[in-house]
Amino acid sequence: MEITRTLARFVVEHDAAKVPQKVRHEAARSFLNWLGCAIGGSRHETVERALAALAPFSGKPEATVLGRADRLDIMHAALMNGITSHTFDFDDTHLKTVIHPSGPVASAILALAERRPVSGAAFLHAFILGVEVECRIGNAVYPEHYDVGWHITGTAGVFGAAAAVGKLLGLNEQQVVWAFGIAATQASGLREMFGTMCKPFHPGNAARNGLLAALLAERNFTSSNQGIEAKRGFAHVLSTRFKPEEITRGLGETWEIALNTYKPFACGIVIHPVIDACIQLRNEHRLEAEDIESIDAQVHPLVLELTGKKTPQVGLEGKFSVYHSAAVAVIYGAAGEAEYGDAVVTDPRVVALRDRMNAAVDKGMHEDQTRVAIRLKNGKTVEKAIDHAIGSLDRPMSDAALEAKFRALTKGILGQADCERLIALCWKVGELRDAAEIARASVPAR
Amino acid sequence: MEITRTLARFVVEHDAAKVPQKVRHEAARSFLNWLGCAIGGSRHETVERALAALAPFSGKPEATVLGRADRLDIMHAALMNGITSHTFDFDDTHLKTVIHPSGPVASAILALAERRPVSGAAFLHAFILGVEVECRIGNAVYPEHYDVGWHITGTAGVFGAAAAVGKLLGLNEQQVVWAFGIAATQASGLREMFGTMCKPFHPGNAARNGLLAALLAERNFTSSNQGIEAKRGFAHVLSTRFKPEEITRGLGETWEIALNTYKPFACGIVIHPVIDACIQLRNEHRLEAEDIESIDAQVHPLVLELTGKKTPQVGLEGKFSVYHSAAVAVIYGAAGEAEYGDAVVTDPRVVALRDRMNAAVDKGMHEDQTRVAIRLKNGKTVEKAIDHAIGSLDRPMSDAALEAKFRALTKGILGQADCERLIALCWKVGELRDAAEIARASVPAR
Repeated sequence: MEITRTLARFVVEHDAAKVPQKVRHEAARSFLNWLGCAIGGSRHETVERALAALAPFSGKPEATVLGRADRLDIMHAALMNGITSHTFDFDDTHLKTVIHPSGPVASAILALAERRPVSGAAFLHAFILGVEVECRIGNAVYPEHYDVGWHITGTAGVFGAAAAVGKLLGLNEQQVVWAFGIAATQASGLREMFGTMCKPFHPGNAARNGLLAALLAERNFTSSNQGIEAKRGFAHVLSTRFKPEEITRGLGETWEIALNTYKPFACGIVIHPVIDACIQLRNEHRLEAEDIESIDAQVHPLVLELTGKKTPQVGLEGKFSVYHSAAVAVIYGAAGEAEYGDAVVTDPRVVALRDRMNAAVDKGMHEDQTRVAIRLKNGKTVEKAIDHAIGSLDRPMSDAALEAKFRALTKGILGQADCERLIALCWKVGELRDAAEIARASVPAR
Repeated sequence: MEITRTLARFVVEHDAAKVPQKVRHEAARSFLNWLGCAIGGSRHETVERALAALAPFSGKPEATVLGRADRLDIMHAALMNGITSHTFDFDDTHLKTVIHPSGPVASAILALAERRPVSGAAFLHAFILGVEVECRIGNAVYPEHYDVGWHITGTAGVFGAAAAVGKLLGLNEQQVVWAFGIAATQASGLREMFGTMCKPFHPGNAARNGLLAALLAERNFTSSNQGIEAKRGFAHVLSTRFKPEEITRGLGETWEIALNTYKPFACGIVIHPVIDACIQLRNEHRLEAEDIESIDAQVHPLVLELTGKKTPQVGLEGKFSVYHSAAVAVIYGAAGEAEYGDAVVTDPRVVALRDRMNAAVDKGMHEDQTRVAIRLKNGKTVEKAIDHAIGSLDRPMSDAALEAKFRALTKGILGQADCERLIALCWKVGELRDAAEIARASVPAR
């Protein structure tokens, strides 16, 4: 079976009308979440350095660096927006493969849409197809490919970007086959880079290179016809196992974007149950830090292994501290980027509460479970057991929670009215006359 | 031992004065050969399609597409020149690794030199260091890395480009370490693409991405400090074996560019002995096709396996025909790009002679051997045995032969005077006040 060609034919022939409304809505949720992350990350040193290095080489300034006044050519804009959207590691996660699906795809097509106007309906459809392609390719090689050491968001993402751009460019089947080959031969991104600026570079690079692949294919720049499945193609060279049926089975019947998840908290997913429990207890009992004697959590072993930092000194360390995370959850009722700022981590009120927090391993728990007991100074104890943290597939964030996350991420960058307008645009992205309106609306008023 | 850092320190600290004159001359030979290939390939459909796709996204037109009037930003120019220089597969070969070393490195730094003027001495030094880095990294993973399916010119080339550009930018040790990390996380290129336009895309992409890596590192865009040697770094993820000592042993004492070779003939290296023998016999005996009864060659088994095409119909097929190759060698005394043109392959005079050519396998021969006997209609037979074909390490092409190759490649693109001027510039590249003069001199007069 010709895997690459089958996937290409699917991209070319699939009709937008056949996407279920529920899937379209999930795509809008993914897009909103992605856009908030990109705008939120748009002031970070990572993109500042990338812009300083590369803006001098930009072509026609046709596309927006989201959340900024800078405009670059579409390939550089795709790169920058892929970078900013993953800088906080707060973007979406396809849990089956740990791919962050929106970054490579949305960054590529939103930049393209600023050059070649496209309806919101076509845009959303291309986005859904791009995510489908990258996640299916991911499914076909996960976990072995990831275990080898590849950052799957980069390696699978470039196919997703190529597919989505190819759909919008109206490529024919052979051209999409070539685009996949050109994507395959650029697939890259090492897990060794985690913890450095290269991690968010990966989805940006996937967006840039996927765009490049489709643009070259549009001009009939040739590649292999079996870029994915050949003996020396992507799957066999970059993985120790290949399950081709994961790419072709049920194409157009099931939708990977329906399995997308969003992080409510700006830290590793293992602490999410504890934060969830603390926020629920705070809200249900109107807790104040000063009334609390102690916080006791029973947690999965990974929690202490990965996030056992007792006395974080800077924001980034706070993300690896279940103690800090529980403290801000109780005090602020949130654990977004703001609650992991350097000043928050050393705030005496936060430090005092985190010092009264204890975590003990319960080996019987699964990763998404916790039990938290908060003892009050008045002698009373309140408790909460979590089976699935908010943000998991079993307990997805509500639309309202995604909006709140967007507001928190864009605070200080966008004015309130602009923020609300952008949220509204995202919800109706599928109905826009011109999808690029969203990119333009992300630029803060002077 | 810190491999990446050791290599970075070498690049930063190495002094041009310590490069032996013989090595500098070999670098000039490599550069001349590369430039001829790039100009020769500059009219090919491959680069025409790439230009059509990507020129609309170019930034400031600061750099030359060699052999053409087109000017692009330095990253796009590096990409295009890497593509053209490998389009004919006629560029240099580091036989130990089958890396084509000049493409990624020279394409990157010549484009850079047009933006940031640099002396020829510094340019040649950076070129030598870049080749050293890519070939040593290649040595450390070859052949296992190649056997996995990686096109090593792409994957190792990106490091070479990053090193050479980093040297010219004056990066410090930490920045070169980062540049290597950013290069590592972009390393890509699949052997599956051989036979398609993506093959020459690989050195171009390596040039572009290596340049990007060094430019990002210049702005302190961070990556891993062990991009090459870490458990999840380049060598372990992209190869099944890693010999780190190949990178660090004798750094600055031996020079990989001294092992570089150049193809005298525009076809697979397995037929070179036969062509060599035929040209020698033709010249020694002033042979004419019409006087020849038959040509009989005894060859290594790979010759018939790879190039046994009896009746090629188009130029590309001619490259896989030992029969066509022997015929043009006798008729034209050459086997350059011109002798593999579509019209030559169907020329009745060539067809008639190739039909009188026979090749038989001699299992006792090594790959670089052949015995050719040409029987003349007058009953006489002339014979030639080849032990090492011209162009091999044992029988390198002379400077004059490299010049002749350059002339043949650039014929029809450059006028004769321009061609001779460019050859002269290449020989004295190390003394030029401004290395970019060479790029400008490659543009044909209107």
